[in-house]
Amino acid sequence: MAQQKKLVEEITPMEEDFARWYTDVVKKAELMDYSSVKGCMIFEPYGYAIWENMQAILDKRFKELGHQNVYMPLLIPESLLEKEKEHVAGFAPEVAWVTQGGNDKLEERLCIRPTSETLFCEHYKKVIHSWRDLPKLYNQWCSVVRWEKTTRPFLRTSEFLWQEGHTMHATEEEAQAETLQMLNVYADFYRDALAIPPVIGQKTESEKFAGAVATYTIEAMMHNGVALQGGTSHYFGDGFAKSFDITFTDKNNQLQHPFQTSWGVSTRMIGGIIMTHGDDSGLVLPPAIAPVQVVIVPVAQHKPGVLDKANELFAELKAAGLRVKVDDSEQSPGWKFAQYEMQGVPIRLEIGPKDIEKNQCVLVRRPDRNKSFVSLDGLVESVKSELHMVHEILYNNAKDNLESKIYAAHNHEEFLEIAKNKPGFIKAMWCGDPACEEKLKDETGGVKSRCIPFEEEHIGDTCVCCGKPATHMVYWGRQY
Amino acid sequence: MAQQKKLVEEITPMEEDFARWYTDVVKKAELMDYSSVKGCMIFEPYGYAIWENMQAILDKRFKELGHQNVYMPLLIPESLLEKEKEHVAGFAPEVAWVTQGGNDKLEERLCIRPTSETLFCEHYKKVIHSWRDLPKLYNQWCSVVRWEKTTRPFLRTSEFLWQEGHTMHATEEEAQAETLQMLNVYADFYRDALAIPPVIGQKTESEKFAGAVATYTIEAMMHNGVALQGGTSHYFGDGFAKSFDITFTDKNNQLQHPFQTSWGVSTRMIGGIIMTHGDDSGLVLPPAIAPVQVVIVPVAQHKPGVLDKANELFAELKAAGLRVKVDDSEQSPGWKFAQYEMQGVPIRLEIGPKDIEKNQCVLVRRPDRNKSFVSLDGLVESVKSELHMVHEILYNNAKDNLESKIYAAHNHEEFLEIAKNKPGFIKAMWCGDPACEEKLKDETGGVKSRCIPFEEEHIGDTCVCCGKPATHMVYWGRQY
Ligand SMILES: [Zn+2]
Ligand SMILES: [Zn+2]
Repeated sequence: MAQQKKLVEEITPMEEDFARWYTDVVKKAELMDYSSVKGCMIFEPYGYAIWENMQAILDKRFKELGHQNVYMPLLIPESLLEKEKEHVAGFAPEVAWVTQGGNDKLEERLCIRPTSETLFCEHYKKVIHSWRDLPKLYNQWCSVVRWEKTTRPFLRTSEFLWQEGHTMHATEEEAQAETLQMLNVYADFYRDALAIPPVIGQKTESEKFAGAVATYTIEAMMHNGVALQGGTSHYFGDGFAKSFDITFTDKNNQLQHPFQTSWGVSTRMIGGIIMTHGDDSGLVLPPAIAPVQVVIVPVAQHKPGVLDKANELFAELKAAGLRVKVDDSEQSPGWKFAQYEMQGVPIRLEIGPKDIEKNQCVLVRRPDRNKSFVSLDGLVESVKSELHMVHEILYNNAKDNLESKIYAAHNHEEFLEIAKNKPGFIKAMWCGDPACEEKLKDETGGVKSRCIPFEEEHIGDTCVCCGKPATHMVYWGRQY
Repeated sequence: MAQQKKLVEEITPMEEDFARWYTDVVKKAELMDYSSVKGCMIFEPYGYAIWENMQAILDKRFKELGHQNVYMPLLIPESLLEKEKEHVAGFAPEVAWVTQGGNDKLEERLCIRPTSETLFCEHYKKVIHSWRDLPKLYNQWCSVVRWEKTTRPFLRTSEFLWQEGHTMHATEEEAQAETLQMLNVYADFYRDALAIPPVIGQKTESEKFAGAVATYTIEAMMHNGVALQGGTSHYFGDGFAKSFDITFTDKNNQLQHPFQTSWGVSTRMIGGIIMTHGDDSGLVLPPAIAPVQVVIVPVAQHKPGVLDKANELFAELKAAGLRVKVDDSEQSPGWKFAQYEMQGVPIRLEIGPKDIEKNQCVLVRRPDRNKSFVSLDGLVESVKSELHMVHEILYNNAKDNLESKIYAAHNHEEFLEIAKNKPGFIKAMWCGDPACEEKLKDETGGVKSRCIPFEEEHIGDTCVCCGKPATHMVYWGRQY
């Protein structure tokens, strides 16, 4: 700790090296630690508290919409994973295999779940018999393992934390509506909790989830113009239901297969907020998910009355339901200012003898460092209003960043030129052929289709790659 | 579902076959389902909701006491597990080994965590440097895997859910105090939330946790007289700290090893409440952890005003913070009564046209089926008071069961006679020699030392096994 704190000042500037800036921030803000297990990370208290706040908001929303939490086993027998052909093809290359239990070699290999469609299907087969049993609206919070070759804290790790919703419905329409409803729950969460403007749309055939009929996605743009796939919602049709032989008798006493969805968001959202809102002083956290929303720093705290007043303000703000902290440690106020800026605390209150005389305190907003004197009368309201303002500032900055980094490409040459020189999203027409996606990716060293947005613009008539008639406008970009 | 519901009536009577009664209840109350993975179970919504309620109460208490949640990796490299000799000897025979990641054979085997002392120690080594970094009070909620040969839902499964607290302290005294503090948190939780009277004490040398200096335990007695180890708290001294080379500089600038604790409770507590409070009609849930505390059953619900009134009561109770449900399905009231009795809902309210006329409803308490007419004025207070009463009834019944099944054995013969004929706990003197524990276990086919209680009685002067001078009074019993 002592060692780490000396490094607070030493965050690599974002412009100098974005990747190093990122790893400096996650380490120095004490969000995570590396473990000795390849590709697996430790969530330290500050990082885990962000996840708990995300969970609380999402879990409440899921339940309001009628979802129920369950817990499925961590392990999947190889034969079960293999039941849906596209699904196993997508996941088998990246799973961890358990081959030995205690001193005995297992008769069948078990993989650690990379996702749990197969487990849910196996259970649904047992509990779905009649239309009365539908819909089934289940969700689970858990960790999953996907054996990654190159990893980056929060963004890509061999083990990560997430939620996975898995639902079954009597009709196609209902399942499709659920898929889009949950995509919108995520979009709202990005806007209202993470202060990130989401680009939403449908994945192309080649980018969709293994086994899905359609995959919908939340795409967020990071500060450096790189995309983060921030959440997905899948419509499965009755494909898994057929593979797993799940049936129900409908109201006309006919045997039917139910229709399925799944949807998930993960701890990579923590990476998303860092790279969307962070700056050269460190983390900047949206108030809705900040573990500490307000830090109170007493100034000249040895003077009579200062600590008492600080604690009084603490009690008042805490009673109002805010997440608040007083730092009465022996460190200097200047050190504390830097420390909580680095940890991204949305609002800092400074209170010293002169402030107390004037019945005021100093309020500093983290994103723009706006400093104001605020009366101690009505402090709760002032702080709430400033927290709201912090959210607005973050959201608007992120929106400006997103909008300023979307470029229209009208032809192949423009596409390549933008891909080479301008980090961000390219909007361009596409014929619908996966071969064109593949070619553009190869030519640009990694620019892939992000999504077909729900609101397409008409940029031209022909595919920027092959010149054939275009069927869709697509957002393209590099991704984490 | 339809199929399962027909079986509601078909719970094996407890006296006929306790084990079958138990599995009937967990299945028919839809707490869990079996999975195709050996020894692993599925937590269905009703079972998982009980766990969420347990988590909420405990997590709040942990945080009030200054603990912080973290998340450590799922996997432990074999070399890391081996760092503490007693620990690895205790766990290696029962871990699941990952030997392959994707298509590659791993250079080093990784085990799925059976418990996470080694991971916490590795991290603590990196973040503990000075006395200022202490104490570290970390906890995590996760699943762990221990490869079990024979399994039983909730009680013994290859994967289970739990919390594991791992703390580091500057002094022995502080770590010992933490160990006992957390044991008492568990004891309070058993009394106040689970309505189970805990027997608390210290494990003998042969029963303590692998690597611990001392293990303290919560022992609960099930309805059939069998013990359930319901939670443990371990004091490690500085043994792990030495094995992992964790040091800090104290206030005198001397290098020291910190002192460690760990403590955990798991989803086996769900098994504990079933076997403590359940009866031949099914589950009986303590109000503090019941997913539904009050069910409202409309009677003659097609009559005008009945459903409206039921929904009005629902809104009133919900606004008061109670977990409440109206069942307005097409099933008959009689079917609903049986269903919610089977699911152990603490209180049932019945409301029909005649009740509405009289501005009253019928209130039935699950444990004793006490039926009373309750005025709709002040309903919230009446319901809260009856929920409190349900808790008291459950606790007192469990206490009576515990006290009536503790038998003092004054000599070897008595011990064997009680072990053979009277299910329950035996209190008897012991010399302190593990050989006597081993002998008693063998002679009785499995009666083991439960704990040395904090409040020992003086039953005699000599060990019931060898006749040598006794050092402790010990509770003995069979266990799940
Ligand atoms: Zn094309
Ligand atoms: Zn003896």
